[in-house]
Amino acid sequence: MDTWLLSRMQELKDLQGLIGLATWDQETYLPARAAPARAHQLATLQGIHHERLVDPRLGDALAQAGAAGLSDDERAMVATLQREREREVRVPAALVKALAEAQSHALHAWREARKERRFARFQPALQRLLTLRREQADAYGHDGERYDALLEGYEPGMRVSRLTPVLTALREALIPMVGRLTASAPEAPDLFDGRRYDKDAQWRFTLRLLEDLGFDLEAGRQDLSIHPFTGGTHPLDVRLTTHVDESQPLSALFSTIHEAGHGLYEQGFAPELHRTPLAAAPSMGLHESQSRLWENIIGRSRPFWEHYFPLLRDDYFPQALAGVSLEGFLAAVNRVRPSLIRIESDEVTYNLHIAVRYELELLLLRDALPLEDLPAAWNERMARYLGVTPPDDARGVLQDIHWAWGELGYFPTYSLGNLYSASLHRAAARDLPDLEGHLRRGELRPLRDWLRAHVHQHGFRLPAEERVRRVTGQGLTDTDFLSYLRGKYGALHGVAL
Amino acid sequence: MDTWLLSRMQELKDLQGLIGLATWDQETYLPARAAPARAHQLATLQGIHHERLVDPRLGDALAQAGAAGLSDDERAMVATLQREREREVRVPAALVKALAEAQSHALHAWREARKERRFARFQPALQRLLTLRREQADAYGHDGERYDALLEGYEPGMRVSRLTPVLTALREALIPMVGRLTASAPEAPDLFDGRRYDKDAQWRFTLRLLEDLGFDLEAGRQDLSIHPFTGGTHPLDVRLTTHVDESQPLSALFSTIHEAGHGLYEQGFAPELHRTPLAAAPSMGLHESQSRLWENIIGRSRPFWEHYFPLLRDDYFPQALAGVSLEGFLAAVNRVRPSLIRIESDEVTYNLHIAVRYELELLLLRDALPLEDLPAAWNERMARYLGVTPPDDARGVLQDIHWAWGELGYFPTYSLGNLYSASLHRAAARDLPDLEGHLRRGELRPLRDWLRAHVHQHGFRLPAEERVRRVTGQGLTDTDFLSYLRGKYGALHGVAL
Repeated sequence: MDTWLLSRMQELKDLQGLIGLATWDQETYLPARAAPARAHQLATLQGIHHERLVDPRLGDALAQAGAAGLSDDERAMVATLQREREREVRVPAALVKALAEAQSHALHAWREARKERRFARFQPALQRLLTLRREQADAYGHDGERYDALLEGYEPGMRVSRLTPVLTALREALIPMVGRLTASAPEAPDLFDGRRYDKDAQWRFTLRLLEDLGFDLEAGRQDLSIHPFTGGTHPLDVRLTTHVDESQPLSALFSTIHEAGHGLYEQGFAPELHRTPLAAAPSMGLHESQSRLWENIIGRSRPFWEHYFPLLRDDYFPQALAGVSLEGFLAAVNRVRPSLIRIESDEVTYNLHIAVRYELELLLLRDALPLEDLPAAWNERMARYLGVTPPDDARGVLQDIHWAWGELGYFPTYSLGNLYSASLHRAAARDLPDLEGHLRRGELRPLRDWLRAHVHQHGFRLPAEERVRRVTGQGLTDTDFLSYLRGKYGALHGVAL
Repeated sequence: MDTWLLSRMQELKDLQGLIGLATWDQETYLPARAAPARAHQLATLQGIHHERLVDPRLGDALAQAGAAGLSDDERAMVATLQREREREVRVPAALVKALAEAQSHALHAWREARKERRFARFQPALQRLLTLRREQADAYGHDGERYDALLEGYEPGMRVSRLTPVLTALREALIPMVGRLTASAPEAPDLFDGRRYDKDAQWRFTLRLLEDLGFDLEAGRQDLSIHPFTGGTHPLDVRLTTHVDESQPLSALFSTIHEAGHGLYEQGFAPELHRTPLAAAPSMGLHESQSRLWENIIGRSRPFWEHYFPLLRDDYFPQALAGVSLEGFLAAVNRVRPSLIRIESDEVTYNLHIAVRYELELLLLRDALPLEDLPAAWNERMARYLGVTPPDDARGVLQDIHWAWGELGYFPTYSLGNLYSASLHRAAARDLPDLEGHLRRGELRPLRDWLRAHVHQHGFRLPAEERVRRVTGQGLTDTDFLSYLRGKYGALHGVAL
């Protein structure tokens, strides 16, 4: 590839890495009074990244790179950067500025509205954001389905026409399943009834898990933050955070496993892709499939805890977990219960929370739902899908920060993560006949190595669904996820699902 | 001021802040395997900073800013940035690149040479660096004294013709003083004879000192690193590091006081200077005056320890310091002893180590000393000024990293720091009649506030010596420093100096 073009690709990736550093630092170590200074520094970096990306010389170089003489990877690098650049070029500078201001305003209004528990306080700011995001979607361009243009920013290649049938079928299968699981719930101890879980022991256990998972702590780290996330600056500098709460040991534990799933993906990109546009996951959904595979399918499974529960109880929390059995613990970490709040929900009902959001976003982008009707539409769907009704907007339509950030089109990637995770797990179990045995012996590396070989190392070489199809033999489907749930919860609840 | 020009000034400062973040992170939290990635990220940031600084549009805007309609601060901002820009513009891109390569090569050669304890291993790489730095100095321009052009990079406005007489007089006064102090040394306990100083207690004591010093931990932090330093991204985000060693409690203690001196300076810049070229110290020497004033003049003084020693011994290290008296402790932290290694030396002999380096650098830049004669010239001066002779080059000419970095012209700023610190302290004692009483009661804020009012807040409004003259009534002099040493050590050793 042309040296100038390659150096521009590397520079853009370096800038993204530095944005990653400034963001990570902001959530971990930044002194309180420095927040406005950091906002300026981030805006400067983002402005320079934008300027370099839309630079016409880059556009020319990409156009001239052609196909001749390029390797497959180089062709994919050019195509990936070209797509990213074209999206960025299409949005006028005035719109970028208006969006940034509207976001900042909406975040403030959202916080106030939550305090007042009243959507009307948030509505004008959200209306403004929605108007601008519609404009942005039209600027990106679409075939009549405006939502597609926003979805493309998180899930390149995915379309509403492909997604809706799958998510609708999933929803229709889950509603009765949740009913049956609620009715047949096994006895589970309350692990949080005033018991104290030593923070240092929690931290040590999470580090042990990272070690066992093969997360390379010479090429990454774990720190504390209020909201756990995965960030970093490079595949050899991947930064996880977790949150340790003395009364909620599962929070740190499952956060660490979840973020490690993301982190293993980032660490797994092939070295020849580093500092190129291919050192990235092809979609948020596929990224999320890795965190959810490890957190839910592995981290809440019986074989996993057959190995780890005795350790957790006897070596880390001998007092707090005294008298808790493996069966009780498994029931506690796999409790299915319709609830009001998405981030507290279990892996079964979770997708119904997403259905509510996805369907409402779709209506909003289609101009088919006046914003003042949003809270009622939210509550109606919550009642219909989950059988619960929010007592106020704070525990309803105002619960997530996403819309206040202007992130419309993001929510379905969570369900895509669940669906892809089950399909990939099925393929892994096919290729690793002793997968359960490995887990039972605390051997997590064989699965990590399989994921690295089949998913991680490839970065953005293929779109997400294409990657999954290569590995599993089929693309997006709810079959594997539903069959995973039926198998697992059928056994746990002793019912046929 | 022109909005565009101001926004360019802010952008440059943001980029410097981000370079500060990436550097701080590199020395504190960066995973081991990420070092090459970080080098790329830093090079990208520095490249962008350079590109923005030499941008001809910035040159035009600065030239057109003129004097009319500008406030005093704005005029100083324009002049400061103009000077910085002109230096950067004068160095051809090829030379910048050659210097970066030569530095990287020299660092490697220096490390190898230290292992082999043999200067000859380092000599060719240093020769290359020296040749390039001479070229660079000639590109910057000078009036026949090439050293001036490099010194300007660390100590704007200072000249060899002004510096040499002062440092020579200082040297001539110190040589006999060291002899008399060595001969009259008081009894001092060996604080490091196998005693263990709890690391956590050391850390807590350093935090207490930061609190007492008025270092704002909401606008800064302290972390651990191998070599203590002060960095950060903004006056509201100042980052100190210290080094805690179980057998060397004074290392963390004095490092923290030293770095806090730097940090208080950075935190003290007036808010109206933030994100402008004036949010900076006018020289390395004046910056160093703050760290040395706090570390040596205050932090090794009797009134300071009259307050802190009982605390240190009784509350933090009751076992390790059992039986140590205030007198013994003061003697131990003020031991004057000619030694081989600069960074282990005391505040008296320190300046003789600097004299050796400054005089040799001057000869090298004047082409008056062949590089192969450097070790012999080093050893000869060490014997003449300090009465000690390095047994090998590792403990002689190879001990400092500065020359391997290409930092020629930096060393004298350390002595300038000592000289300025004593002059500023004299002025503070004049304005604060109860300064000793404050220290005896552990009240460090009055001195901090005085320094903030007279030095810190002004940032780069005036050159260093001009700032000192405004405050003390005179510019660079060795009188105050020598009289400080005579007073302090005369009393400690019971001799007239």
